[in-house]
Amino acid sequence: MEKTLILDGKNIAREVRSDLKTKVAQLKSHGVVPKLAIVMVGNAPPSLIYVANKEKACQQIGVEVEKFHLAEDVPPEAVRETISLCNNDKNIHGIILQLPLPGHLDGNELIETINPGKDVDGLTTTNLGRLVRGNPLYVPATPAGIVELLVRYSIPIAGKRVVIVGRGELVGKPLANLLLLKGNKGDATVTVCHSRTPDLVAVCQSAELLVVATGRPGLIKENMVKPGVVVIDAGINRTENGIVGDVDFDRVAPRAMAITPVPGGVGPMTVAMLLANTVQAAERAV
Amino acid sequence: MEKTLILDGKNIAREVRSDLKTKVAQLKSHGVVPKLAIVMVGNAPPSLIYVANKEKACQQIGVEVEKFHLAEDVPPEAVRETISLCNNDKNIHGIILQLPLPGHLDGNELIETINPGKDVDGLTTTNLGRLVRGNPLYVPATPAGIVELLVRYSIPIAGKRVVIVGRGELVGKPLANLLLLKGNKGDATVTVCHSRTPDLVAVCQSAELLVVATGRPGLIKENMVKPGVVVIDAGINRTENGIVGDVDFDRVAPRAMAITPVPGGVGPMTVAMLLANTVQAAERAV
Repeated sequence: MEKTLILDGKNIAREVRSDLKTKVAQLKSHGVVPKLAIVMVGNAPPSLIYVANKEKACQQIGVEVEKFHLAEDVPPEAVRETISLCNNDKNIHGIILQLPLPGHLDGNELIETINPGKDVDGLTTTNLGRLVRGNPLYVPATPAGIVELLVRYSIPIAGKRVVIVGRGELVGKPLANLLLLKGNKGDATVTVCHSRTPDLVAVCQSAELLVVATGRPGLIKENMVKPGVVVIDAGINRTENGIVGDVDFDRVAPRAMAITPVPGGVGPMTVAMLLANTVQAAERAV
Repeated sequence: MEKTLILDGKNIAREVRSDLKTKVAQLKSHGVVPKLAIVMVGNAPPSLIYVANKEKACQQIGVEVEKFHLAEDVPPEAVRETISLCNNDKNIHGIILQLPLPGHLDGNELIETINPGKDVDGLTTTNLGRLVRGNPLYVPATPAGIVELLVRYSIPIAGKRVVIVGRGELVGKPLANLLLLKGNKGDATVTVCHSRTPDLVAVCQSAELLVVATGRPGLIKENMVKPGVVVIDAGINRTENGIVGDVDFDRVAPRAMAITPVPGGVGPMTVAMLLANTVQAAERAV
C-alpha cells in the first residue's frame, strides 16, 4: 500500500491565511479595516488559549481584534449589552462569543442575539437554517475548514460515502448539512452516527471518508476503518499525554489513504475559516 | 414471515384529528378560534386539490381558514403584502404559502417573510435552524407526520439505521435533522442518499427503516430492501394509473415488516400535522 498521506492542516491554514492577507490588503485600499469582536467570559485556560490563537491569527493577516473580556460572574444582561454594542458598531464586521460559557449563562440564547450578518461562527439559528436551505451565509468554521482541507488536497467529496461520528451543533450536524448540498464540495452520501448508534463499528467500516467529532479520545480503532479510508479527526482532547484526537492515530493511520493529525490537522483550519468568514463579513461592508 | 403491516396513514390521521378536535374545543372555550391563512397563487390543479384538502381538514376539527387566492401573474410585492397582512392579523395563528409557485416568484424569499411564530409549515430559515439546533418550534409537516405515524404504530426509531432517499427541503433534510435529535423519537443513525449516490442499492439495503422522498415513481425495487425493513413512502406522483409513490409497492411490500401505501400513507399524515402545528400556534396565543 502507498504511504499514508498526512493532511497538514497547519500548512494549508497558512495557505488560506496568505490568500486572506491579499484580500485584507485590498479591503484596506478601499478604506475598510476588517475587525473581529471576541466576547469572552471568565478565565478558563482552554478558552484563553483559543482566544489568544484567534487574536494572533487575525493580526497576522491584518484583521483588527477588539476583545471584550467579561468577568466569570457577569450577569446575562451585561453579555447581551456587549453583543448589542458590537451589533451596532459599524466598524465591527464579525462577532464571536467564545464557548463554553459559565453555567449561569445560556450560550444558545446569547448567540441568538448576535446579528446574523456578523455571526462569523455561523451558529445563530438563521445561519444554521440558511445552511440547511442551501444558501449559507457563514458556515461554522470547523465544518468549513474540513471541506477546505479536502478541497485543497484534491480529495473528492461528491459521490463518496461519508460517515460522521458525532451529532454536535458545532461540527457533526452542520457538516452533515454542508456535505449534502449540491455541487462538488457536497453531493456526498452522508451518515451521522453517535453515542446511541448500536453498531458503530459496522457503520464506520462503510465509510470512504470518516469524520470524527465526539470528544472521546481514541474512540476510533483500526478495526473500525476499511483500508484506503480518508480520516478527519476533529477531536481536541487534553490528556496527560498532551492534546490528542478522537482517533487512535498510530493504529488507524497505517490503514488510511489520508488522515489528519491532532494537533495540526483540523484545529488550524478552524481558525483559518473563522478568519475567512470575518474577511467575507468585511467584504459585505464595502 | 409474518404478514406485512400496512401503515394506515388515513386512519392514524383520523386519530390525530380527533385529538386535535378536543384541543380546539378547549381553545374555543378560552375564546380563541384557531385560524389558518392559506396563501395560494394561480390555479394549478394539484395545488387546488391540496388546498381543498387542507381546508376540509381544518373545518372538520373547527379550525377556521382564510384563503388568499392570488392571480397566476401576481407581482411579488402583492404576495408580500398579503403575507404581511396575515402576520399582523392577531386572529390568524398560522400562515402557509402553497408551493410550488409560478416561475416569476421566488418561493424561498417569500416564505422568509412569514413570521416564524406563524410559519406552521416550518419552512422559514429560523424554524429550520431551530430544528437543527434541537429546539424546534414548528417541524415541517411531512417529517413530523412520518415520525407521528411510526410512534402511533409503536415502531421504534431510536438506535435504528435509517436511510432517507432524497435530500429535499420539505422532507429529506428536515427529517434527517429530526431523527438525529436526542430522545425516543430521534436517536437514529441516519443516512441521506440522493441522485448523486453511486451505490443506492447497497445503501438502501443497509436500512432498517427506509424513507423515500424523491418524486421518482417506482424507484425502490425489491432488491433494494432487506427482509423485515420498515418502508415509508413519501412520494406522491401523478401517473396515468393514478397517484403512486416512489416505492414499487407490490414487489417491496412482501419483503417488508411494515410499509405505507400511496395514497393513504404519508399524505394524510402531512395534512394532520399541519393542523397540529396550527392548533399549537393558536395555543401559543392563549
